[in-house]
Amino acid sequence: MDSTKTERFNKGWDKLKEIDGEAGTSVIESLKDISPDLGVYIIEYGFGDVYSRNILDNRTKEIAVVAALTAMGNAEPQLKVHINAALNVGVTSEEISEIMILMSLYSGFPSALNGTFALKEVLKERESEK
Amino acid sequence: MDSTKTERFNKGWDKLKEIDGEAGTSVIESLKDISPDLGVYIIEYGFGDVYSRNILDNRTKEIAVVAALTAMGNAEPQLKVHINAALNVGVTSEEISEIMILMSLYSGFPSALNGTFALKEVLKERESEK
Amino acid sequence: MDSTKTERFNKGWDKLKEIDGEAGTSVIESLKDISPDLGVYIIEYGFGDVYSRNILDNRTKEIAVVAALTAMGNAEPQLKVHINAALNVGVTSEEISEIMILMSLYSGFPSALNGTFALKEVLKERESEK
Amino acid sequence: MDSTKTERFNKGWDKLKEIDGEAGTSVIESLKDISPDLGVYIIEYGFGDVYSRNILDNRTKEIAVVAALTAMGNAEPQLKVHINAALNVGVTSEEISEIMILMSLYSGFPSALNGTFALKEVLKERESEK
Amino acid sequence: MDSTKTERFNKGWDKLKEIDGEAGTSVIESLKDISPDLGVYIIEYGFGDVYSRNILDNRTKEIAVVAALTAMGNAEPQLKVHINAALNVGVTSEEISEIMILMSLYSGFPSALNGTFALKEVLKERESEK
Amino acid sequence: MDSTKTERFNKGWDKLKEIDGEAGTSVIESLKDISPDLGVYIIEYGFGDVYSRNILDNRTKEIAVVAALTAMGNAEPQLKVHINAALNVGVTSEEISEIMILMSLYSGFPSALNGTFALKEVLKERESEK
Repeated sequence: MDSTKTERFNKGWDKLKEIDGEAGTSVIESLKDISPDLGVYIIEYGFGDVYSRNILDNRTKEIAVVAALTAMGNAEPQLKVHINAALNVGVTSEEISEIMILMSLYSGFPSALNGTFALKEVLKERESEK
Repeated sequence: MDSTKTERFNKGWDKLKEIDGEAGTSVIESLKDISPDLGVYIIEYGFGDVYSRNILDNRTKEIAVVAALTAMGNAEPQLKVHINAALNVGVTSEEISEIMILMSLYSGFPSALNGTFALKEVLKERESEK
Repeated sequence: MDSTKTERFNKGWDKLKEIDGEAGTSVIESLKDISPDLGVYIIEYGFGDVYSRNILDNRTKEIAVVAALTAMGNAEPQLKVHINAALNVGVTSEEISEIMILMSLYSGFPSALNGTFALKEVLKERESEK
Repeated sequence: MDSTKTERFNKGWDKLKEIDGEAGTSVIESLKDISPDLGVYIIEYGFGDVYSRNILDNRTKEIAVVAALTAMGNAEPQLKVHINAALNVGVTSEEISEIMILMSLYSGFPSALNGTFALKEVLKERESEK
Repeated sequence: MDSTKTERFNKGWDKLKEIDGEAGTSVIESLKDISPDLGVYIIEYGFGDVYSRNILDNRTKEIAVVAALTAMGNAEPQLKVHINAALNVGVTSEEISEIMILMSLYSGFPSALNGTFALKEVLKERESEK
Repeated sequence: MDSTKTERFNKGWDKLKEIDGEAGTSVIESLKDISPDLGVYIIEYGFGDVYSRNILDNRTKEIAVVAALTAMGNAEPQLKVHINAALNVGVTSEEISEIMILMSLYSGFPSALNGTFALKEVLKERESEK
């Protein structure tokens, strides 16, 4: 992988900071000593390619991602990053807990409960960082 | 279970027809000889309680559900019902395939591909029913 | 949602206390400040409707739920609540570890091991609460 | 693997026939030209070791397995084999659809619906074989 | 997305043809009228970036992918594409059924069985195409 | 279950020690007071039968298992045991993080990230035990 940053990388890095803020950049940082290329791919493909697309707005994207990660139920750290991202782009905490209630229909109450408790922790963390 | 329809049932039935249309009512119909109570619960809890909530609009709900079912990857018939529902409430097919692209990041390309092919089938079925 | 408790709520609340005991009511309690309606739905639909049905007895219900949550492998807090519930309604710890052995065939040894260790923790917690 | 059948194999084969009947033996048969050892392991470990244990009775085992496979939602052929097995050992079809209703709480309505439709197909197949 | 093919696209396209052969290119083809960009991402990110990496050889990559898709159990079309790919890069059918036996330990016998039957179908298709 | 160890048990125990080392034997040890038979089955079926097969070498087996557990995303303790096992049988940490990058395509970036962080923890633990 070239050490020179690609245009996709730069576009992706800006998008990552816009949406995920510090929670996102610190994930990339923590990859540096173990799998830097995975971090590059997340930035280039995840944010430079996919998140930079304009058909869905940021709010809609994060609603879809929070729903999916809640339903999958096996990616709690990433769910918390995206609950943060959702709040960052203007989804309210009331809307997020509404997504969790909706998920009770599709992936069951355990996923809805664990998603709701993840939201509760994120809100507490954001409160304490103020 | 009482044979008299509850208020929640009537509200749910109307909501089911509004969102899922015939695809939804035919699911309930096919439950009649095997598990009618499951159908009642889908209508009462799923639609009378949850879908009747007003914090998220129908478009947002269906975007969340299509994302979740695509990511779960093990509920193809229900994914197709909800792709139909999404189209019914004004989500465009371009937006739906955009959700699938977004899911490639969270649940991988197989889920994105199978979701996209489900969309393709639904569009073809809707075309042939015109 | 009405502040007046429905009949389904009252029936569900009694059933929740009968089966899950304190582990169940404390889950509902912890939802109060973040998503009280999710708690209401768990009580009304989960316990007022579904758990109040009489075709399967409590023992059989909890055996089915412990098996399912072990196999899913992504809902450890809820698995522990239901291991407690199973013990409360007369399933023995020997029978529960037997379910985990059976699950090794269907969802693999990791799920059987994680289920067995959840049982071990629950037994230790119950011992220390005596 | 020895061509001489082990005692575990013989015990397992009898147990497989007792519980799964023809649906079970035909699975083993269909493995013969592609992976006969997988068939041997299913018989020896699955049935000779695990299903031959006596702490849970056959009814309880099949209730647990049907619940788990319904919740997992990604093993339809095996779910149908075990719905058959459950019926063979005295679980009623009413009890099986009750398990599916219970699963709506833990793995969502899509899994409950797909499980219920699998039951419906199995009942139809058994009816036509009479 | 530019209509001019990127260098990553060209590298990815060659890699896709090398590994997946016609099964791979026909997936891309079938995306053309519904989500061409998803096809471009599979080629650019999947094959141009990831599969072009040289730390694991093709054989090792396909062994890992066949194991993962078998264990996930919810992506049968993609499992069949990668069983084909594994055979194309020199993994024997005996080694593939050995992976399925190994998966019985981690994701259970249903996943091992469904993986083995997918292998059986792929072998039959390849035989009939000779 | 006989208290006399079977030949399969002894063969399995040696294989378990060879591959998993202390991480493996301590799992069996921790089962002793809760489900000793599950430990016996892991040794007899898992290691005495399956891991003792010679068609795939140890390196290939562990690559397949690490890929599968990463993709499943719901068995972190077992993933860490098998990352250790992979390192024990000669898979390099660079190759393991390569498997995680590959998994980003099939089970998404959250699974690839969580797998990579599990690797990072295992490497730190092994470093501190030197």
